[in-house]
Amino acid sequence: MKTLTQELWMEVPQRRAIVSIHDEVERLVAASGVREGLALVNAMHITASVFINDDEPGLHRDYDRWLEELAPFDPSPQRYQHNRTGEDNADAHHKRQIMGREVVVGITEGRLHLGPWERIFYYEFDGCRRKRVLVKILGE
Amino acid sequence: MKTLTQELWMEVPQRRAIVSIHDEVERLVAASGVREGLALVNAMHITASVFINDDEPGLHRDYDRWLEELAPFDPSPQRYQHNRTGEDNADAHHKRQIMGREVVVGITEGRLHLGPWERIFYYEFDGCRRKRVLVKILGE
Amino acid sequence: MKTLTQELWMEVPQRRAIVSIHDEVERLVAASGVREGLALVNAMHITASVFINDDEPGLHRDYDRWLEELAPFDPSPQRYQHNRTGEDNADAHHKRQIMGREVVVGITEGRLHLGPWERIFYYEFDGCRRKRVLVKILGE
Repeated sequence: MKTLTQELWMEVPQRRAIVSIHDEVERLVAASGVREGLALVNAMHITASVFINDDEPGLHRDYDRWLEELAPFDPSPQRYQHNRTGEDNADAHHKRQIMGREVVVGITEGRLHLGPWERIFYYEFDGCRRKRVLVKILGE
Repeated sequence: MKTLTQELWMEVPQRRAIVSIHDEVERLVAASGVREGLALVNAMHITASVFINDDEPGLHRDYDRWLEELAPFDPSPQRYQHNRTGEDNADAHHKRQIMGREVVVGITEGRLHLGPWERIFYYEFDGCRRKRVLVKILGE
Repeated sequence: MKTLTQELWMEVPQRRAIVSIHDEVERLVAASGVREGLALVNAMHITASVFINDDEPGLHRDYDRWLEELAPFDPSPQRYQHNRTGEDNADAHHKRQIMGREVVVGITEGRLHLGPWERIFYYEFDGCRRKRVLVKILGE
């Protein structure tokens, strides 16, 4: 069995933003030498997501508006008890549950086994700080 | 390590529908010869989901109504910027994030290791076209 | 390849509650002897979730209020067709889709490879009965 483990450092200068990590994950799969296996890609922080969807800026703006409807930013401790701790990011912990923590992608013949429009993204919900994404590749 | 890789072709004649792929995944696990391992089952298209829940038609209708409340179908470019691209399926990209892209299921003693009511389904949110599901089985 | 398979029995005396299973999963990873691999942790029942987020009671209360807004408990068969079957737990099948069925966690140098605040929880949405969580560990 071969494995490759890599932490990617993210530093997003906005509070919320979608950042492609697709090429970096592809590069790591190639570097791993794994021909048949699985790639786990997950946010290591609980106010961020890793997800797979379309690389289309209009859709990314739609997601942002939609998540803000489902779980609005509100730093006050009235809406979210979590913000009684002095944090202002309770909304981010909710948005991340909708978009998910991780993706698991098959590796076939040495490449990510993806459909035509699948692209891997990092979604930052509470940025302006350094965070990590884990890429763990396993197979042979 | 043994692996099995299979793409399942789906062609759902409705815009939205839930289709069981449970028996097919079970069959592939048996065919793989894997006794201990993992099965990844994921939609390869970004307007569809693979999920595990109850095989109960009333619940499936409930999901459909609920997802339509959370992210209504609206082909106009007013609600969803994604539809400015000429697409009309922005709602489908949202619904799929709620229901998820993939499931990972344990394989124990040569069988899917599931609870009593767990069944694997494909959820089409933008049908009337051919799409694929990936089944990737890995273990020994 | 090494594997470890363990079912954890849960019996939550409330209808809904969040229970940490983090220490138990850590213990199983140590017991498995796996140094490099993956851990799958999933609810085996379709009215419960396994998720990773913050160990903060205020946030857990926020999740509960939020999920009740998104998919309210309503035993009547009017809101949810699923409850025509005699069940009263249709809301639980919806809440679980938001919070997710499973997590997949990397194992590096014999330990769960997690960020500083990541903790693994079981979320019961229809308690007062015995249910199971599957921990499946695979690697070498």
